[in-house]
Amino acid sequence: MRILQAVKGANPMDNTMEARVQQDYVQEILSLLRSGKSDEEIRDHLGDYHANDIAEALPELSLEERHRLYALLNNEGLAEVMEYSDEADDYLEELSPQRAAAILEEMEPDEAVDLLKETDSRQKKVWMSLMDPEDRRSLQTLASYDEDLIGSRMTTNFVALNSGLSIKEAMRSLIEQAADNDNISTLYVVGKNRSYLGAVELKDLIIARRDTKLCDITATSYPYVYANDRIEDCLEKLKDYSERSIPVLSDSKRILGVITAQDVIEVVDDEMGEDYAKLAGLTAEEDLKEPIRESIKKRLPWLMLLLVLGLVVSTVVGMFEAVVAKLTIIMAFQSLILDMAGNVGTQSLAVTIRVLMDEKLTGRQKLGLIGKEMTVGGLNGIILGFLALSGIGAYIALFKHLPLHQAFLISFCIGIALLLAMVISSFVGTAVPIFFKRVGVDPAAASGPLITTITDLVGVVTYYGLSAILLIDIMHMGAI
Amino acid sequence: MRILQAVKGANPMDNTMEARVQQDYVQEILSLLRSGKSDEEIRDHLGDYHANDIAEALPELSLEERHRLYALLNNEGLAEVMEYSDEADDYLEELSPQRAAAILEEMEPDEAVDLLKETDSRQKKVWMSLMDPEDRRSLQTLASYDEDLIGSRMTTNFVALNSGLSIKEAMRSLIEQAADNDNISTLYVVGKNRSYLGAVELKDLIIARRDTKLCDITATSYPYVYANDRIEDCLEKLKDYSERSIPVLSDSKRILGVITAQDVIEVVDDEMGEDYAKLAGLTAEEDLKEPIRESIKKRLPWLMLLLVLGLVVSTVVGMFEAVVAKLTIIMAFQSLILDMAGNVGTQSLAVTIRVLMDEKLTGRQKLGLIGKEMTVGGLNGIILGFLALSGIGAYIALFKHLPLHQAFLISFCIGIALLLAMVISSFVGTAVPIFFKRVGVDPAAASGPLITTITDLVGVVTYYGLSAILLIDIMHMGAI
Repeated sequence: MRILQAVKGANPMDNTMEARVQQDYVQEILSLLRSGKSDEEIRDHLGDYHANDIAEALPELSLEERHRLYALLNNEGLAEVMEYSDEADDYLEELSPQRAAAILEEMEPDEAVDLLKETDSRQKKVWMSLMDPEDRRSLQTLASYDEDLIGSRMTTNFVALNSGLSIKEAMRSLIEQAADNDNISTLYVVGKNRSYLGAVELKDLIIARRDTKLCDITATSYPYVYANDRIEDCLEKLKDYSERSIPVLSDSKRILGVITAQDVIEVVDDEMGEDYAKLAGLTAEEDLKEPIRESIKKRLPWLMLLLVLGLVVSTVVGMFEAVVAKLTIIMAFQSLILDMAGNVGTQSLAVTIRVLMDEKLTGRQKLGLIGKEMTVGGLNGIILGFLALSGIGAYIALFKHLPLHQAFLISFCIGIALLLAMVISSFVGTAVPIFFKRVGVDPAAASGPLITTITDLVGVVTYYGLSAILLIDIMHMGAI
Repeated sequence: MRILQAVKGANPMDNTMEARVQQDYVQEILSLLRSGKSDEEIRDHLGDYHANDIAEALPELSLEERHRLYALLNNEGLAEVMEYSDEADDYLEELSPQRAAAILEEMEPDEAVDLLKETDSRQKKVWMSLMDPEDRRSLQTLASYDEDLIGSRMTTNFVALNSGLSIKEAMRSLIEQAADNDNISTLYVVGKNRSYLGAVELKDLIIARRDTKLCDITATSYPYVYANDRIEDCLEKLKDYSERSIPVLSDSKRILGVITAQDVIEVVDDEMGEDYAKLAGLTAEEDLKEPIRESIKKRLPWLMLLLVLGLVVSTVVGMFEAVVAKLTIIMAFQSLILDMAGNVGTQSLAVTIRVLMDEKLTGRQKLGLIGKEMTVGGLNGIILGFLALSGIGAYIALFKHLPLHQAFLISFCIGIALLLAMVISSFVGTAVPIFFKRVGVDPAAASGPLITTITDLVGVVTYYGLSAILLIDIMHMGAI
């Protein structure tokens, strides 16, 4: 059991009435820089703040104030600030190319690569040319991975120990490497050519007897991923292991880097944000600063497609013109049936996409999921169909002044169409994304338009078809 | 710059043709347990595997095999496996109550609390009564935090050092605590009564001169959160700092625990999953194992509400019955306009909800966002409206055999209605969630139904209204 004194007697109801002081470190940093204190004093105080807070203060500062700040921080400190800044490329341009190159060398390599992606290619070339050749090659390698591969997300901030070392030697090697690499909770054990052999927890290394060999305390079946793995394929694994870091290997099993828990946060945030956006019919996620041109580009494709598909639905609705002409009252409820079918389809789609993202399903499980969704859709359909039958029947009788039996015949059609549309929408909302996943198309992006169209068609055909047969052909209602 | 040898020459294009061996550790563990090797040998090999893989092997084992596994692992090892298992409560019941209590003592407190939430209250009482009183109190305290408060997500696995210590004393204190607490990358410095003073990076402690005092190297403005903070209010902050751990304080500024990067992954996953589900009209996220009854419960409320709101729309559509009766052809395009308006509204809604989640907006920024969304909607509307005007005009002339001028008058109404509906949907899709956020209602859950209804109403009124005025009143078209 971990530290207990800490929570002893710490009842969360204590002190709730006492105002919690919210820290505003960014304001403090601004005041500090503008305080007129000596460089020495300011430098001393700056060390107390988190690099993220200093990074957030940057846009609030004037160019002159920023130059003062740059001069106060050493390369290592400024590199850390740049890792947290959204506009790091702009700030780096305010420095001499020599210092900018030195900062890039000090930054976490994956963050440096992200920064360089934002930089124009001329500036990038200048900086790269001034960097240490070894550092430059390392950045080039990271940058060469496709954005959807794990390699593009890894960092080379990790400690590798040779399997031949004794515990004592391993400790010495760790301390040497720790100056540059601070991901030391888990250490990686390598053989010849840095081939990956396993992992050791720092804790186990500390408590091990000095005379044992490193290979004796190595967990040889520690999890790993390949740099060429697709992110979406191993994200679930990374989340499941929930480790501080997971090693990233080349195809020939050499260790290239690690994925830290912080990297996983970023990846989860990005991947889920993308899926969320796609569900809403955007081709990619947008944020507040997105230019209007970009926003239009992200939204127009889906809307265009939907316009074309909408025309297909309209063609089918048009086939029932004669029915509507005879019995105009029924067209008022078309939107209700289509909306409900669309909603049910979206619910099934959302559940299915999340399940597909989280787990590898067997064919049997897929059938089970489809079956379950149809059952849920059917049961909800029975409840809502019955509500529609009784509620809308009464509504028509009351507001449209139709005889009771005619009102309930119409609402019967609505109820049955609703039930059928909901069951089929559930099926479509589950089967379509499973199909797209199967054929290697992104289900989150592709499913929406197809599902909307199919559910619309099903809703229209059931509703007007049933009305045509039951109300007009059999009951000879019309001209109401 | 961090370890470079690792990536040197590691071109991702190397070896892509060579098959990557995918590890299947779960299968290996199963084979190991069924191999007939001696206990000693199996125990030795088990140490090589990650607890998560052993946890995943549990459901594949027979009860007898599981009992053998339980006997092979010590309490600490088994506790770690339980932290990773989804059905840990069931497996714990297979142990003697004494051992179960001991395992609970060894587990990470936040994981133990999660496990106990799944356990029936009688069993829970037995286990709790057998636990060390101090451990029990710690779990009770963690369990007392509401699910939406940070306190419910923290762990007490952290190292606290007294500010009065010298560097040498601090190192000794760290090594003592490290046996139980393995989150040691960042160490927390406390004063009297464990009041929080700041943080020290392990790296800085290691390189500090032995004769300096701990307080000299303490970052006193290190970020923190309060246990009583709402998760959604400080999630963005936790993501921004991207630290291995952030301290969690009581309202009186005593340190109670930490939020690790792994905790943040879980929180991000949960929070985004919820928003995703709500956008799709589910009241909460579902997974594959969800019983049908639960699924119905999660989906029915929204559907019921939509049925009622759908009836409102139907009433308004019903008002245009006379128009449709005169000019039946126009009703075929109702679904197209409503679908498009709904899609545009959903796009704006999705963008707005993500923006609202990520940032605290000023009134000016909110107006800016609404303005931008309407501009995007308007520009997309002009493009699509023009496409509809020309495309659908031609379509009507060709397939419905109408004179060209009549066909284009109808498609003019469709184009204008589409444009207006898209602009207003963009406004509604942005303003409604901002309004709900303002009045303290969850915008992700509440906005959908209202937006659908409003966009439907706008679409219907514009389309049929325009048709009534332009086509029937002015042009005297009818009975087509």
